[in-house]
Amino acid sequence: MNAEIVTVGSELVSGQKLDTNSQWLSTRLGDLGIVTRFHTSLGDDREDNLAALRVALGRADLVVVSGGLGPTQDDLTREVLAEVAGVPLIEDPAALAAIEAFFTRRDRPMTDRNRLQALFPRGSEILVNPVGTAPGIWLAYNDRIVVCLPGVPYELYQMFTEQVVPRLRELGICRRVLVHRVINLFGKGEAEIERMALDLTARGRLPEVGITASDATISFRITAAGRDETEALAVIEPTAQVIYERYGPLIVGEGAADVTEGLAGELARTGWTLATVESCTGGLIAHRLTRVPGISASYKGGLVTYAESAKVALLGLDPALIKKHGVVSAEVAAAMAEGVRSRLEADLGLAVTGFAGPAQSWGQGPVGLVFLGLATPEETTTRRMELGPEQPRDVIQSRAAKHAINMARLDLRERPSRHEA
Amino acid sequence: MNAEIVTVGSELVSGQKLDTNSQWLSTRLGDLGIVTRFHTSLGDDREDNLAALRVALGRADLVVVSGGLGPTQDDLTREVLAEVAGVPLIEDPAALAAIEAFFTRRDRPMTDRNRLQALFPRGSEILVNPVGTAPGIWLAYNDRIVVCLPGVPYELYQMFTEQVVPRLRELGICRRVLVHRVINLFGKGEAEIERMALDLTARGRLPEVGITASDATISFRITAAGRDETEALAVIEPTAQVIYERYGPLIVGEGAADVTEGLAGELARTGWTLATVESCTGGLIAHRLTRVPGISASYKGGLVTYAESAKVALLGLDPALIKKHGVVSAEVAAAMAEGVRSRLEADLGLAVTGFAGPAQSWGQGPVGLVFLGLATPEETTTRRMELGPEQPRDVIQSRAAKHAINMARLDLRERPSRHEA
Repeated sequence: MNAEIVTVGSELVSGQKLDTNSQWLSTRLGDLGIVTRFHTSLGDDREDNLAALRVALGRADLVVVSGGLGPTQDDLTREVLAEVAGVPLIEDPAALAAIEAFFTRRDRPMTDRNRLQALFPRGSEILVNPVGTAPGIWLAYNDRIVVCLPGVPYELYQMFTEQVVPRLRELGICRRVLVHRVINLFGKGEAEIERMALDLTARGRLPEVGITASDATISFRITAAGRDETEALAVIEPTAQVIYERYGPLIVGEGAADVTEGLAGELARTGWTLATVESCTGGLIAHRLTRVPGISASYKGGLVTYAESAKVALLGLDPALIKKHGVVSAEVAAAMAEGVRSRLEADLGLAVTGFAGPAQSWGQGPVGLVFLGLATPEETTTRRMELGPEQPRDVIQSRAAKHAINMARLDLRERPSRHEA
Repeated sequence: MNAEIVTVGSELVSGQKLDTNSQWLSTRLGDLGIVTRFHTSLGDDREDNLAALRVALGRADLVVVSGGLGPTQDDLTREVLAEVAGVPLIEDPAALAAIEAFFTRRDRPMTDRNRLQALFPRGSEILVNPVGTAPGIWLAYNDRIVVCLPGVPYELYQMFTEQVVPRLRELGICRRVLVHRVINLFGKGEAEIERMALDLTARGRLPEVGITASDATISFRITAAGRDETEALAVIEPTAQVIYERYGPLIVGEGAADVTEGLAGELARTGWTLATVESCTGGLIAHRLTRVPGISASYKGGLVTYAESAKVALLGLDPALIKKHGVVSAEVAAAMAEGVRSRLEADLGLAVTGFAGPAQSWGQGPVGLVFLGLATPEETTTRRMELGPEQPRDVIQSRAAKHAINMARLDLRERPSRHEA
């Protein structure tokens, strides 16, 4: 069974309001094993509503309409559905009584237009609205099912969960659940990672594996169906294992976990501590780390040495070193990492220095040139990266921060836990 | 002229990702006087893409497609557009060179699939992608215009603004422009600010004034139409003046400018310098300041003294002071501000200490209790705030950072410029 979601409201297509109902409904339908193939949003226009509903019924088994059930003349869903289905609108006495009761409870006057909300296409079932005035509609029509729900999100959520899901289950359509597992990778490009995964992402393979990129983090999303979650997860497991074996150190976490959570996990596992010093990323690494609850046990703190004088004053860096190699250099990155490691008495010292742009503020080097430094008890390593020059400042900062965090994560990954010692 | 927006990606119809491009594009088109009638989202399926593009071309003059231009086998927009338009795909040497250069700059291998991104339907114009590998497409076809843009929001924003808008204007379609001017305020609640503005926000008044709140920043949005931007701005100006006169020190900036840009502006105007030290905000102030281009002239740097030992090691704070008053206290905030001002030889020292929660990690005081400290050449002032306890950690961090930044902004606002001296 596949579905189309139609959201109605001029405020959606004008851009005044963001449509979140489509996403919410797709997720819920997906969990029931129903695949959503289309979302359509349109304004409160009669012809557009007729056209959209006809297109939807031409290509989907289940059409869920959100919005257009209110009492104003802009609300067209009832009459458009009746016209497309070729049936008259009939007033439902129980629905009318419920609307009257709603106004009595709130001690507010009921208008004639509210009475229109008790009209339903003949042959439809009424979905009660326990939290608003607009009842919903369930209509079986030509082997299709049309479900109309109010556009107010919390009304839609409640009515879908309590009345639509049980009806869909009763039809015997939803015998399975769809489960997703998302594995996040960092450190290589999307094309390169995908090239190693062509066997997994091949069309028609089960379980299905999708690949997406967001801010240089690449995610594998494995999807499987089963009678319940346990069964679906068991279908997913062997594919997840292949990904873990193949991509090992690139994997930073699952679900919402990115490099920062990956590093926080390694700090917690090993019992090691970290201190940071940032130039071009300006506190972004510190900010991301301190957003992870419980990090205070591992994270000693950080310096933002934005001005050159701050590097000298806070880290005791030799001005001659800066003068000789330039502030954006492997030598300065190494000295910063060693300096912060020793000043804050941490196991690891992590440093970033670079040019984040825009060009006119610098001139000492190419925008996007970044050096990372990592000081450990044994050695100090540096890494040179070119993240620009065409990227905007905030993207360069974000990428530099992620690569630095990943550098510390990869180092800790090889270390045994101190807790066990 | 009316438009349809088509967003492509299985992650959208599955509910994995929220489509925000449709809203963004609708708003921009609306500002150009182009009405969006439909949004369609669909997955990476060939037949569905063909069907959706045919439906869109059947009912809209302008079709904007977002997504499906990447290098993977899921990316179908190029070939589907060519098929619908009945033209072959042709490799563009300039586009290929640009993609090759992108990989050379990053020192990353280019795959064969990336080469597919240089294919374009015959007769189309290429929209250069300055920040990613996927170029866009502009195709005039049967009195319709099809514009294809990458799905990555910041790539789409930049390419639409810089390349699509000028082309639409050239066509002479956009005879009227809608212009907005947004004035941002911080430091008082929305209800209080609105109560002083009832004459401005009254229904039917021209130019229209709306009021919105986001993360404690209150924005007045003044909207006017005109034949061009100059004409619309002239309609807006008198209302903007009333707001400036009425709200004076509360106004932090216009457009995207919030308290941070307000402080950066005051630093640039006065020629003063700033240093920061943060505990519960964990680098957020430093991060926000360093996102402002050109701040390096004024911002000396900052400390993130997350662990207590870091406060002692980096600022030379007396452990007895911390023991006596507690780490979250006016006394410690003042000592931190003075310490960082002197260590970094800045004109102003700004400090934050507080409990951001969640509750279980602290226990030494109520979640949301925050002290701000500001050290100037003349004196040190502190401010006690209660930003919790029901707010989540990230909201408390953000509010504390904003109030601290605003404290420095208000101090500088009263000072003369040194440049003139």
